[in-house]
Amino acid sequence: MDFAHDARTTELIERLTDFMDTRVHPAEATFAAQVAESDDRWAWSRVPVLKELQAEARERGLWNLFLPPKHDPDGRGAGLTSLQYAPLAEITGRAIGLAPAVLNCAAPDTGNMETLAMFGSEAQKQRWLEPLLAGEIKSAFAMTEPDVASSDATNIGTSITRDGDDYVVNGRKWWITGAMNPDCEIFIVMGKTDPTADRHRQQSMILVPRDTPGLEVLRGMEVFGYDDHDHGGHAELRLTDVRVPAENLIGGEGDGFAIAQGRLGPGRIHHCMRSIGVAERAIELMCVRAQERVAFGKPLSEQGVIREWIAEARVAVDQLRLLTLHTAWRMDTAGNRAAHGDIQAIKIATPVAVQTILDRAMQVYGGGGLSQDFPLAAAYAGIRTLRFADGPDEVHKSALGKAEVRKHTA
Amino acid sequence: MDFAHDARTTELIERLTDFMDTRVHPAEATFAAQVAESDDRWAWSRVPVLKELQAEARERGLWNLFLPPKHDPDGRGAGLTSLQYAPLAEITGRAIGLAPAVLNCAAPDTGNMETLAMFGSEAQKQRWLEPLLAGEIKSAFAMTEPDVASSDATNIGTSITRDGDDYVVNGRKWWITGAMNPDCEIFIVMGKTDPTADRHRQQSMILVPRDTPGLEVLRGMEVFGYDDHDHGGHAELRLTDVRVPAENLIGGEGDGFAIAQGRLGPGRIHHCMRSIGVAERAIELMCVRAQERVAFGKPLSEQGVIREWIAEARVAVDQLRLLTLHTAWRMDTAGNRAAHGDIQAIKIATPVAVQTILDRAMQVYGGGGLSQDFPLAAAYAGIRTLRFADGPDEVHKSALGKAEVRKHTA
Amino acid sequence: MDFAHDARTTELIERLTDFMDTRVHPAEATFAAQVAESDDRWAWSRVPVLKELQAEARERGLWNLFLPPKHDPDGRGAGLTSLQYAPLAEITGRAIGLAPAVLNCAAPDTGNMETLAMFGSEAQKQRWLEPLLAGEIKSAFAMTEPDVASSDATNIGTSITRDGDDYVVNGRKWWITGAMNPDCEIFIVMGKTDPTADRHRQQSMILVPRDTPGLEVLRGMEVFGYDDHDHGGHAELRLTDVRVPAENLIGGEGDGFAIAQGRLGPGRIHHCMRSIGVAERAIELMCVRAQERVAFGKPLSEQGVIREWIAEARVAVDQLRLLTLHTAWRMDTAGNRAAHGDIQAIKIATPVAVQTILDRAMQVYGGGGLSQDFPLAAAYAGIRTLRFADGPDEVHKSALGKAEVRKHTA
Amino acid sequence: MDFAHDARTTELIERLTDFMDTRVHPAEATFAAQVAESDDRWAWSRVPVLKELQAEARERGLWNLFLPPKHDPDGRGAGLTSLQYAPLAEITGRAIGLAPAVLNCAAPDTGNMETLAMFGSEAQKQRWLEPLLAGEIKSAFAMTEPDVASSDATNIGTSITRDGDDYVVNGRKWWITGAMNPDCEIFIVMGKTDPTADRHRQQSMILVPRDTPGLEVLRGMEVFGYDDHDHGGHAELRLTDVRVPAENLIGGEGDGFAIAQGRLGPGRIHHCMRSIGVAERAIELMCVRAQERVAFGKPLSEQGVIREWIAEARVAVDQLRLLTLHTAWRMDTAGNRAAHGDIQAIKIATPVAVQTILDRAMQVYGGGGLSQDFPLAAAYAGIRTLRFADGPDEVHKSALGKAEVRKHTA
Repeated sequence: MDFAHDARTTELIERLTDFMDTRVHPAEATFAAQVAESDDRWAWSRVPVLKELQAEARERGLWNLFLPPKHDPDGRGAGLTSLQYAPLAEITGRAIGLAPAVLNCAAPDTGNMETLAMFGSEAQKQRWLEPLLAGEIKSAFAMTEPDVASSDATNIGTSITRDGDDYVVNGRKWWITGAMNPDCEIFIVMGKTDPTADRHRQQSMILVPRDTPGLEVLRGMEVFGYDDHDHGGHAELRLTDVRVPAENLIGGEGDGFAIAQGRLGPGRIHHCMRSIGVAERAIELMCVRAQERVAFGKPLSEQGVIREWIAEARVAVDQLRLLTLHTAWRMDTAGNRAAHGDIQAIKIATPVAVQTILDRAMQVYGGGGLSQDFPLAAAYAGIRTLRFADGPDEVHKSALGKAEVRKHTA
Repeated sequence: MDFAHDARTTELIERLTDFMDTRVHPAEATFAAQVAESDDRWAWSRVPVLKELQAEARERGLWNLFLPPKHDPDGRGAGLTSLQYAPLAEITGRAIGLAPAVLNCAAPDTGNMETLAMFGSEAQKQRWLEPLLAGEIKSAFAMTEPDVASSDATNIGTSITRDGDDYVVNGRKWWITGAMNPDCEIFIVMGKTDPTADRHRQQSMILVPRDTPGLEVLRGMEVFGYDDHDHGGHAELRLTDVRVPAENLIGGEGDGFAIAQGRLGPGRIHHCMRSIGVAERAIELMCVRAQERVAFGKPLSEQGVIREWIAEARVAVDQLRLLTLHTAWRMDTAGNRAAHGDIQAIKIATPVAVQTILDRAMQVYGGGGLSQDFPLAAAYAGIRTLRFADGPDEVHKSALGKAEVRKHTA
Repeated sequence: MDFAHDARTTELIERLTDFMDTRVHPAEATFAAQVAESDDRWAWSRVPVLKELQAEARERGLWNLFLPPKHDPDGRGAGLTSLQYAPLAEITGRAIGLAPAVLNCAAPDTGNMETLAMFGSEAQKQRWLEPLLAGEIKSAFAMTEPDVASSDATNIGTSITRDGDDYVVNGRKWWITGAMNPDCEIFIVMGKTDPTADRHRQQSMILVPRDTPGLEVLRGMEVFGYDDHDHGGHAELRLTDVRVPAENLIGGEGDGFAIAQGRLGPGRIHHCMRSIGVAERAIELMCVRAQERVAFGKPLSEQGVIREWIAEARVAVDQLRLLTLHTAWRMDTAGNRAAHGDIQAIKIATPVAVQTILDRAMQVYGGGGLSQDFPLAAAYAGIRTLRFADGPDEVHKSALGKAEVRKHTA
Repeated sequence: MDFAHDARTTELIERLTDFMDTRVHPAEATFAAQVAESDDRWAWSRVPVLKELQAEARERGLWNLFLPPKHDPDGRGAGLTSLQYAPLAEITGRAIGLAPAVLNCAAPDTGNMETLAMFGSEAQKQRWLEPLLAGEIKSAFAMTEPDVASSDATNIGTSITRDGDDYVVNGRKWWITGAMNPDCEIFIVMGKTDPTADRHRQQSMILVPRDTPGLEVLRGMEVFGYDDHDHGGHAELRLTDVRVPAENLIGGEGDGFAIAQGRLGPGRIHHCMRSIGVAERAIELMCVRAQERVAFGKPLSEQGVIREWIAEARVAVDQLRLLTLHTAWRMDTAGNRAAHGDIQAIKIATPVAVQTILDRAMQVYGGGGLSQDFPLAAAYAGIRTLRFADGPDEVHKSALGKAEVRKHTA
């Protein structure tokens, strides 16, 4: 249970911090401007400043940091454990902006790359994993459906039907992050190959290239008024008789649920550490504003209620970080499956706590806090989605509570 | 302490409900489309469907319902008490949309009309109140400033300086709701005429027509990602040597703080009752979705946690409504000043409770709840602003707590 | 929906307040001393000062105030509606002490008297109701059992078996309030006469005199560290082949559940109004202490966090009172059954809110707040029991949530 | 940042667990009976079973585990670091009972021993520390006063006045834990030697033997009805012209505040880890009961709300443990002063969270949970005191918030 940063991590933290301070942060405004001026406002991955920064990240050895050594035999990533990567993810989260994309560490590409690395065939890796690792294309993960509670995988309505050498996919998906970006060339689609199989063997995953006939990107979903165009948005899709070769299936028929579970663990570490970075940023912003603003004769920072908010935020974040680092360490040492309960715990604990911290930070800022002038409201919208993404908190609490009862009564 | 609807109120509730069901709700989509297609997307007040509905509201006797009899000697409004108007405001809030504008009962026009009715000179009333009551122009109220904590009125930085027969106004304002709409022809601007006077006698209010040289509308502020263009947005203003005739002052020099206080009471009743309407809508939406969605073998509505949310929402809303009606009754019978503590109480209690209800309703809806497909996220953004509009909750709690201590220890 | 105090209520409030101030409060210490010195510390109802005060309450017309006119054809009580009695109950709650017993308005006697008045035979009324109304004996209500979740009435394990002209009762009960007092002469026992009947027709209630063979009072339960001897404690009972005449059944076989429901409504109004009185007392105590105590250079009452607690308490209590008065008015005008949801709402809302207020008041008092020197900790213990007495909050929330869903989806 | 149990700790955990299971737990009832039967119910330290268990603990090497190596040059304790001791403290807390006393690890003796080890003269150590380490006498720490907010050390009213070769102590103290026990032979009394000195140099600590003339033990304070006689209670003291030799001063004049600070760190680790043990016990009890009890057709453990409580408890406790272990590690490696903020954080976070867990566990148990039949209510009372012992949470939050602001704005 040693969470200390080792020498490698310490060195990477320094290197990444320098890159953030000297190159990434100063480029944020340029990026926004270039996206705004581009022909297709969803095609954020094409703008020059991003390309430059990505090239530089690669030179600096800050590329594909997320990829764990076991899924990276060829050394395409940095070969970091979850525990090593975690503090770096926090730094990129703290920036609330461009950083994950610059480092090729942005969701959903990270999860898709891990999925392909773990479960993809050699041909699939060659065709899709390589360009993703190189940052040449983008990808999407299409699981959530508009018509059902997607937290229950047995609800999935999309069908994947064998027809000769092909599979034919039919269904409707939404909240498919990144899919509005025309550079998003490949979709991993979750559907049912056998609705009569066991509960967790009905689902499969299949690769569907963007240009496949029958795949329609209908519209972008908004999150609290944000279209998130600079992350490729969140698309609604219709798949009508979409035909792909049988070899596009990832793993075998019925493996879909297991693959989905496999990608969740690392993804949650990433999300939670980035969220913790967001919370640290919110605390800093809250402190700065509280010190600057004077009301009724003294700075807000000397008002008891504001101090209490700041203290509670500090204590909450310190706990969340330790819990997440502990979970990363457990995943590294005992494996994803053994760390299942720990992963649920960070998922339950982190977003809701960070939401409260952001809400209070916004309150300290008044109108400004909800506006485009500070990153708080946009961060709030993003964090809020994490309370149901990959299953709502309530489903995870129910499962964790059930497991705890079993532990004490078996 | 009789809160029952009297015959007049009951009849108006029926009439308004009928108008909402048959005319206003069906027109929401048309309104959105006409605004989207108009030359100036901020000029929501010009679109044909709104004009038609406003004419019809007037015919149906559903016009200027907010205007209390004591400020309405000429019968320009419906002559309703706060207690009579409150349930009508709830109905318009429940709609989360067009209704207040259709009835000429939308903020900030309502507060501005009350201010002019109470404190305006005959000439001011003739020039500005009449067209506002007729729904011919729009108005804005410019108090909040970007550089200071505006909850403390002594912080105000805008100056209003006498110069011969004129006043010259200099300052910066933001979050000036409605001001992006070109039909917003008149601004009530709060500034300091005498920074050396007593704490609450430094401020004055002055009428500044939109076309006065030196008044610049700089940009629209966003709330989360919403620009609220269909309400005229929230503008940032710069006033540079803006010169208006001395008779544009509302009341006398130093009356600004008192006028601001006077307009707060009715405004809070309106806001709270509309918020309660929003909460009722959220409860209904939450129930409907919970009944429809099935996860893990049963509808969400049979899950214990969801039922608890719904029950807690029900209990909270019933309490808020009684508290607000009681406050309206107090205002009607004992006056704005005597009801000061009550008004603070509803301001403290309502927005934060409705925020929680909306948050849970969104959680029941998952991704949909945060999107443009349901009114929850936009309602959330609006309600969230009420926790600092007219002074943050914390300032009101501090004052109320202080008063309570005094009551028990004097 | 008129909650104002009518003339009768106003007059009674004055009369009761005078009695509390001049006679009851000054006697609290004497009562405690006399109970401490008595032979049987559980027999609080025998001490001289109580007898004197009861006689005086009767003379002053402050006796049996709880008894509603419809159950009081002979004018044994004050003939007050729930709405009239409610503010009087608040006054007795505020005292946190002797008052309910002095006025013959203490639970469980009140509920038992209402039960007998509503459902008892003439003989039962003559034998038990009369001496209870006269304050000559005490009674207990034996429903809760140690071995099952008593919130679900179908769980009840006690059997009531017909045997010739008798019923034979077997079972185990606990938390039977008042039963440690030897003056508690009669027990209303809930048991099953027919475990095979419909869910809510299995239960019956029967009168068991204290001296019936087979009825053993085993021990007193403690609430936190309090034995509540000055209220007759909370006994554990064993009933072994307890034989009583068949005419001791209240109502008919299978009526037990309905009778239990019938007594709940008024009881909850009483409990909630007394709890609100407790909260008012806590607010007063909190204010007084906050003003007296100085830390870090200023009174606690000037610390922002303390002011916030006081304000939140004020706002919460004002809402709870309105909700409870509204419920009382509903019960009076539409009946117990129609007010079912309202009664659940006050039960859900009140105890938990008052618990929080007491917790904060104790925090303001530090060690003193938890001690015997102030009434806060004992009040906390009492209020805490209300969160599961008559069914835990969670059961009521679930039922209320279910009803709300039905309302919106039927 | 390595929190793993080292070999020594692992071995001690096993040894302690065995001792708890085979000897301490089975003796709890005997201990309670022997205390109840003893001549002086406060003299819990004299009963035979305790003496036997203490002797056995010493033989088993489970004695004075709390004493850190740096204050234990002669090897009187186990020589454990804070990090090594922490999991052992959790085990003793989990037992909610006799364990700390058996191991000579109970407050306030532990803090007093550390104080003497750190700051005592050789003569003081010989006279008082030795018998304390041997478990032959008990001690008390007299800081809190009834008349002032003791969280602000400048408020202290007790005077310690030099008079020739003596000091004369005058003042009033309360909540002096353990002092009702006649074996409590020595009091460390905090008072002011120089009220005109700098804020934190006014206070001194002095040793006052129990039998010194002028020291009166007035009464025991109760906590929620518990007198805690089996821990020696919580006494109110009066000190009237209490005269002790000048060499009884601990350290020098004006050192009192610094000494008080020095003893807080380890004490908080102990308290927090024991509290975490309490929470673990509460979770286990909650799970067991939830599984056993059936309501409305299924065990409570299958009700969503109960599962949510259990999950939230699990997640909270895991975070608290990591935070406390991290703090212990910081204290061991960076020192008490450097870990100041961490120590405040665990003090802020732990008691309030454990209080909530206990409250919910009690709710699952219904009446039983508040009673003498389960350890929950007594544990609740104990944990509740921790929210103001050593300064109320609010003072620590204020200080931590202030420090955080300084960090970001310096």
